[in-house]
Amino acid sequence: VDHEEFRRSGHQVVDWIADYLEDIRQYPVLPDMKPGDVVDRLPAHAPDRGEGMDDILEDFERSIVPALTHWNHPRFFAYFANSGSHPGILAEMLAGALNVNGMLWKSCPALTELEQVTLGWLRQWIGLPEEFFGIIYDTASVSTLHAIAAAREMADPAARTRGNAPGLVVYTSEQAHSSVEKAVITLGMGQDNVRKIPVDEAFRMRPDALRDAVERDQRAGKRPFCIVATVGTTSTSSIDPVPAIADVAEECGAWLHVDGAYGGSAAVVPELQAILDGCDRAHSLVLNPHKWLFTPVDCSVLYTRKPEILRQAFSLVPEFLRTAEHPRAVNYMDYGVQLGRRFRALKLWFVMRHYGREGIANFIRRHIAYAQRLAGMIREHPDFEIAAPTPFSLICFRYRGSDDENRALLDAVNASGKAFLSHTVLDGRFVLRLAIGNIGTEWEDLEETWNLIRQVAKKSAMSRSSAE
Amino acid sequence: VDHEEFRRSGHQVVDWIADYLEDIRQYPVLPDMKPGDVVDRLPAHAPDRGEGMDDILEDFERSIVPALTHWNHPRFFAYFANSGSHPGILAEMLAGALNVNGMLWKSCPALTELEQVTLGWLRQWIGLPEEFFGIIYDTASVSTLHAIAAAREMADPAARTRGNAPGLVVYTSEQAHSSVEKAVITLGMGQDNVRKIPVDEAFRMRPDALRDAVERDQRAGKRPFCIVATVGTTSTSSIDPVPAIADVAEECGAWLHVDGAYGGSAAVVPELQAILDGCDRAHSLVLNPHKWLFTPVDCSVLYTRKPEILRQAFSLVPEFLRTAEHPRAVNYMDYGVQLGRRFRALKLWFVMRHYGREGIANFIRRHIAYAQRLAGMIREHPDFEIAAPTPFSLICFRYRGSDDENRALLDAVNASGKAFLSHTVLDGRFVLRLAIGNIGTEWEDLEETWNLIRQVAKKSAMSRSSAE
Repeated sequence: VDHEEFRRSGHQVVDWIADYLEDIRQYPVLPDMKPGDVVDRLPAHAPDRGEGMDDILEDFERSIVPALTHWNHPRFFAYFANSGSHPGILAEMLAGALNVNGMLWKSCPALTELEQVTLGWLRQWIGLPEEFFGIIYDTASVSTLHAIAAAREMADPAARTRGNAPGLVVYTSEQAHSSVEKAVITLGMGQDNVRKIPVDEAFRMRPDALRDAVERDQRAGKRPFCIVATVGTTSTSSIDPVPAIADVAEECGAWLHVDGAYGGSAAVVPELQAILDGCDRAHSLVLNPHKWLFTPVDCSVLYTRKPEILRQAFSLVPEFLRTAEHPRAVNYMDYGVQLGRRFRALKLWFVMRHYGREGIANFIRRHIAYAQRLAGMIREHPDFEIAAPTPFSLICFRYRGSDDENRALLDAVNASGKAFLSHTVLDGRFVLRLAIGNIGTEWEDLEETWNLIRQVAKKSAMSRSSAE
Repeated sequence: VDHEEFRRSGHQVVDWIADYLEDIRQYPVLPDMKPGDVVDRLPAHAPDRGEGMDDILEDFERSIVPALTHWNHPRFFAYFANSGSHPGILAEMLAGALNVNGMLWKSCPALTELEQVTLGWLRQWIGLPEEFFGIIYDTASVSTLHAIAAAREMADPAARTRGNAPGLVVYTSEQAHSSVEKAVITLGMGQDNVRKIPVDEAFRMRPDALRDAVERDQRAGKRPFCIVATVGTTSTSSIDPVPAIADVAEECGAWLHVDGAYGGSAAVVPELQAILDGCDRAHSLVLNPHKWLFTPVDCSVLYTRKPEILRQAFSLVPEFLRTAEHPRAVNYMDYGVQLGRRFRALKLWFVMRHYGREGIANFIRRHIAYAQRLAGMIREHPDFEIAAPTPFSLICFRYRGSDDENRALLDAVNASGKAFLSHTVLDGRFVLRLAIGNIGTEWEDLEETWNLIRQVAKKSAMSRSSAE
C-alpha cells in the first residue's frame, strides 16, 4: 500500500475533476458510440499483475470518458437533469475514504446521527411536521417499495409471517412513475391489483375517479390499502391534488404515499411550499436530493410519520448484530431491506451547508424561471406547441408535425452532442421533454439549445418540402 | 459555482484522506460516544445562507471524525472487515464528479459496458462458466432479494400479474444470513415459508435434512421453489456442501442461489477455487467486492445463468425510458428494482487493475494465513477455546468462562479503542468473532490485539478471584 502514490494520484484526480467541471461544455452531452464499442476496446481479461495508477487514469481518459453520457453537463436536459455539485463531490471523496457502514448506530454513530440531523433540517426546509421520521435509501424506487411494504404491514400485519393475503389493492394515477407498479410486482401483490386512475387535462389524478375506483373495489370485496399520489410526475411534472386524495385515503383507511422524488425539492423555496399542501396528512413522502438538491447520485429520502410500522415490516436482527437498546440509538437497518448503508448523509450535509437554504432556493427559482421563459418562447413559435403545463422546470413540447418528425427532431438534436433531451407520450402523441436541473445551466445554454431545435426542425421541413 | 474554491478544497481533502489513511492506527477504532452526542452537538437548523468549504471541512474534523467507527482501520475485526483501498477511493472520487446514472445503455454507455467488462473479468477469476450474466447492486441483501424474486418468476410466472400463490417454500440453513428471511418477508411470501435446515458440527447445511424437509413439504402439497446455500456464513464462515445441495435442487426443480457475499471472493485465489465447487450448477450467486475485494462500499455482484428470468421478473419500461432495441445494448434497469444506478463498476475496474489477480490473491492469502496462525495460538492457550472451524479469515473463539464474562471481555476490548471485534451465538453460547479483511492489517495488529484480549481476560479473572 503506497501512500505517496495515492497522494500524487489523488491530486491528479482532483485537478482532472476541476478541469472537467470547468470545461464540461466542451464535451458532447451524449457520446457518439455504438453498443459494444467499449467492450470491444477493453481487454477481455483482467491483468494478473497490478498496474500503476498513471496507466489506469490514462485509460480512464482514453476509454471511459469518450463513452460517458455527461449527466453533469449544463445542457443535459433529459429525464430529470441533476447535479453532482462541488460540495457533494467533496463529501463523496471523504465517504469513499471512510468506507463506513451505518447499519447500526454502533457501526457508525457519526453516519447515523448525521442522517438524523440532516433529515431534520430538510424536513424543516420543506415544512413537514416534526413527527415525520426520515431515512436515506439509494433510489426513489426503493423508497417507494418500502412505503408500499409499510402500507401492507399496516393493512395486514400477518402478511409478514404467512405471506400476502389476496384482495389488497393499490391506487395511483396513470401518470405515476413505473416504480409504483414495479414495487407492487416485487412485493408479490400483483400488477392486476394496481389501479391506474385517470388524470385531468393537466395530467393530475382525478379524485372523483379515485373515489369511484375505491368504492368499486370495496363493493367487490377488495381492500384498498395504499394510494400513491405524485408531486411532480415524471412525464410532465404535474401535481396531483393531494388534499382531495388524502380525503379518500382517510375515508377508506389506506396508507397515503406521496412521490415527490423530483418535485418535492421545490418546497425548499418558501413561496413554493404550497406544492406539498396535504402532505402532512400522508403516511410517507419520498424526495430525492440526487434529483433537484444538487447532491450526487445516489440519495433518496423517505419521510414517514409511521416509523414504527415501517420498522415492524422490516426489523429482523440476527444475533451477530444485536446491540444494547438505547432510546436515542437508531439502528437504520431495522427500517429496510438493506443492511449495508453508505455515508450518504455526508454529501447532503455538505450541500445544505455550502449553499444554505437561500442558495438552493435561488438555483431552483432560476431553473423554474428559465423554464417559464423558454416555454413562453416555444408557445409563441408557430411551428411548435406546448404539450403540458410547466409547474416546475420541465417543459413538454412538440413540433407541429407527425410523431415521426418529432422523433427525428429529437434524434438529430441529441446526435449533435450539443444537448440531450428525452421524450414521453401524452394523449397518444410523441412529446419532447426538456428538463432543467443542472446547477451550472445558464440562460445561454437554453437559448443555444432552442436555436438548435429550431434549426434542425427548419432544415428537416425544408428537405421535406424540396422532396415533395 | 466557484471552480477555484473546489480545486483548493479538493486538494485539501486529498491531503486529509492521505494523512488519515497513513495515520489511521492513531484513531480509536470505536468512538467513545453516547447515542445523541452528535445530534446534541450539531445545530438544530440548517443555515439560511451558505458557508465556506473551509468551515465545513473544519466541522467535519471536529464533529464527525470523533464519532466515526473506523471501518478502514487495520484493527477493525468486527462483522466482516473490509477496505476502502486507494484505487477504490480514487474511482469513487471520479464517480461522484461524473454523477452518471446507468439505468439504460444510452443513459451511460461507459457505465453499462464497464460493468459488463469488469463482471466478465471477475467471473473468469472465480472460475464461473461464461453463461453467467453479472449485474451490480448495492448490497447482498438486495442481490439475494432479486435472486429469490427470479426463483419465484421461474416457479410461478403468473405471480407477477396476480400476486403470490400460496404454498411456495424457501430452504436455507439455520446459519444463513438474515437477508434471506428478510427478502422472503419483503417479497410477500411469509416467514412461515422459510425452512431453516439444521447444520452439522461445522455449521454446514445438512443435505440429508434438506432432502427430508423438501420431501415433507412436497407430501404436504407445498412447492419447494428456492434453496439458498452459503459459501462463508456470517457467524462462522462455514461452507455449505453446494454439490449435494445442487442435487436436491435439481431433483425438486428449485432455483439454487448461493450466498458467497463474503467467502466468494476467496475463489480469486487459484488454489482456493474449489470453495465454489458446484456453483456452476447454481442459478445465481452473490459476491460482494465491498467485503473482501478491497472495493469501497457499496458494490454487490449477482451472477445468474438465467438472466432472461431475472429480466422477466423485473422488466417494466415506461415510455420516457423507451429506447431502440439493440442486441448488444444492455439496459440494466430491466434486471432490478432500482432505476438509479451509480457508476460502481469504475471502482471495481480500478481495484482489479491496480492490484491485479496476484495482488488481490496475496492479500486474501495473507488474511487467511494470519487467521490460521492466530487461531492456532488461541487453541493452544489454556484459558481460550476455538468455537468453530476457520476455513477463511474469520476466527470464532471464546474465553473459557461464562457468557457474561465473554460479553464483558468483548466490551472491554472494544472500549479500549485499540480493536473492534463482534460476537455471535453458537450452540447457545456467546462467542467472539475476529474477522480479518482490511488491506492494511499486519501481523503486528493481530499480535497486539491478542495481547490485549489476554490482558483484559487476565485482569478480570484476577479481579474476580480477589473478590471471591
